[in-house]
Amino acid sequence: MDLVQGVLNGDRLALTRTLTQVENDTPTGRAALNALFTHTGRAHLVGVTGAPGSGKSSLVNKLAGYYRYPPDGEAPRRVAIIAVDPTSPFTGGAILGDRIRMRDLAGDQGVFIRSMATRGSLGGIAAATAAMVQVFDAAGFELVLIETVGVGQAEVDVAHLAHTTVVVEAPGMGDDIQAIKAGILEIADILVVNKADHPGVDSTERALRGMLELAHPAPRRYAHHGQIELVPAAAPAPVNDEPLWIPPILRSVATEGTGISEIAAAIASHRLHLEETGGWKVRERLRLQAELDMLLQAKLVACWKAQLPEEAYTQVLDDLLVRQLAPHQAVERLVKC
Amino acid sequence: MDLVQGVLNGDRLALTRTLTQVENDTPTGRAALNALFTHTGRAHLVGVTGAPGSGKSSLVNKLAGYYRYPPDGEAPRRVAIIAVDPTSPFTGGAILGDRIRMRDLAGDQGVFIRSMATRGSLGGIAAATAAMVQVFDAAGFELVLIETVGVGQAEVDVAHLAHTTVVVEAPGMGDDIQAIKAGILEIADILVVNKADHPGVDSTERALRGMLELAHPAPRRYAHHGQIELVPAAAPAPVNDEPLWIPPILRSVATEGTGISEIAAAIASHRLHLEETGGWKVRERLRLQAELDMLLQAKLVACWKAQLPEEAYTQVLDDLLVRQLAPHQAVERLVKC
Repeated sequence: MDLVQGVLNGDRLALTRTLTQVENDTPTGRAALNALFTHTGRAHLVGVTGAPGSGKSSLVNKLAGYYRYPPDGEAPRRVAIIAVDPTSPFTGGAILGDRIRMRDLAGDQGVFIRSMATRGSLGGIAAATAAMVQVFDAAGFELVLIETVGVGQAEVDVAHLAHTTVVVEAPGMGDDIQAIKAGILEIADILVVNKADHPGVDSTERALRGMLELAHPAPRRYAHHGQIELVPAAAPAPVNDEPLWIPPILRSVATEGTGISEIAAAIASHRLHLEETGGWKVRERLRLQAELDMLLQAKLVACWKAQLPEEAYTQVLDDLLVRQLAPHQAVERLVKC
Repeated sequence: MDLVQGVLNGDRLALTRTLTQVENDTPTGRAALNALFTHTGRAHLVGVTGAPGSGKSSLVNKLAGYYRYPPDGEAPRRVAIIAVDPTSPFTGGAILGDRIRMRDLAGDQGVFIRSMATRGSLGGIAAATAAMVQVFDAAGFELVLIETVGVGQAEVDVAHLAHTTVVVEAPGMGDDIQAIKAGILEIADILVVNKADHPGVDSTERALRGMLELAHPAPRRYAHHGQIELVPAAAPAPVNDEPLWIPPILRSVATEGTGISEIAAAIASHRLHLEETGGWKVRERLRLQAELDMLLQAKLVACWKAQLPEEAYTQVLDDLLVRQLAPHQAVERLVKC
């Protein structure tokens, strides 16, 4: 297969085409994924999430730059960035941000930036992200930075696709009760207070530390969200098997490049921690299970749709509208089991 | 049915119990929903969404207060608040915020506040929210304010459950490219710049206005996200049928109660607009379809799980881990159609 060989050879055009096929979930895309899958499992998948205004995109850009031009003679590494933007399902709003960031890293063959504003197909953004990650992984990118905007369920789902999750906050946002979210903290492996030259950085860091102490040393919980939750009784219990990692709280001023090397060091430490403790395998299993469940769900719906007479659905919807049928009753009429 | 009658009579204890049964999706909860459904369709469902730090919770509280104690002799109205918090799937982080807001409205029988940090069951938060909305609607609450945190897919899904969506921004957040999201703007019926006493309010409003002009006067698009997308060809085409509504941009300082009456007036105007133009029915249909699709999806997965031998799933997951099987191949092995 031409496209697949191109991806494995590091051909950028083949990569771009494959990503498009994969994002659109075409037969070609699926065939490519099937062929590429045996070449995956090497990349370090790093999720970077944070609310709008936290400066997380700048941070991701600078981090990519750091991996490309590491200090003191380390080898440069190939970096892919997937910017996931679930808030723009309509107009693909990620494009503008993309152009701006392209300026920084343009022309570097070792960096590949892709943004996604996937219009909600079933399984949606998280499934498409998982598939793209595989392509980058097979193409030999050593780091895949998965950037997600903010604070929603989609972000938590995407975080479950990463080995290491970096949560970015900024001073002043943390004053609000809602800004510091226990749920987001519990997916964080590394916390960054960006814009650390802004006033309020101490209180934001203090607040984060306080929240962390509440959340830990309870073991990091790993759950399945919006997934099938078909965790067989025989599966390993990741919660207790994964030894303790206390998320460090780091400061940065991404626009000036300050604190970036420390963040890169923390990411490397976390990978080492996962490898030494067996956590890497646990996360791999959870990651793949999350992906499998998303695809299963989409397939089940597709199978059902294929056999459904169209009028049956329309009739039920009409009955719902006039309140002759309640939603659960409607479902029972349409699906028997 | 005792519980159902209690809800219809406005009994708070019955309401609380029913909501818990519904949130936990118990047989009792489902039976109650089935019985209550004929009594729904009257409440005005208002989604209020905004990023952390926008002050949206204060705004929702003040808005509820306004409906309870309206000026110039209008009748007070019963208000339910559902605070949806998808970022706290783990620890139910909504509780703290809840306690704080309870202080303002405590003891008022015409207000009911419920927060949700539903642990991702399939269909998840949006499905549970839709069900709770029905309970409040049947119980005679004239307004149901559905408050969602921020900027994720879950928020867009929840917005599709409302008749009117209010998007709250705050000055200073809008400077960031990412803060003003075309996707969020396109679900907005009313835009509010809260914290309007903060510096930068003019530029935030200008930015919003600029984005609005880009987004409109194209008709408001209504899509299905993460849903089944089974829109029969025979269904009405809502996009073109719904006449133009230009979202107003309002200013408020929620903590001081400034601008609240204007927001309430805009919400009332929007309802009137929907009723006069037939948009109300269009949204009702889309709302119910979204809900139906979520439940169908969950049911299909449940049916499939019920007939699946557990070892089959575990074996496939093991094969995935050693890269003997790619995800799509795994799905094909587990689901035939």
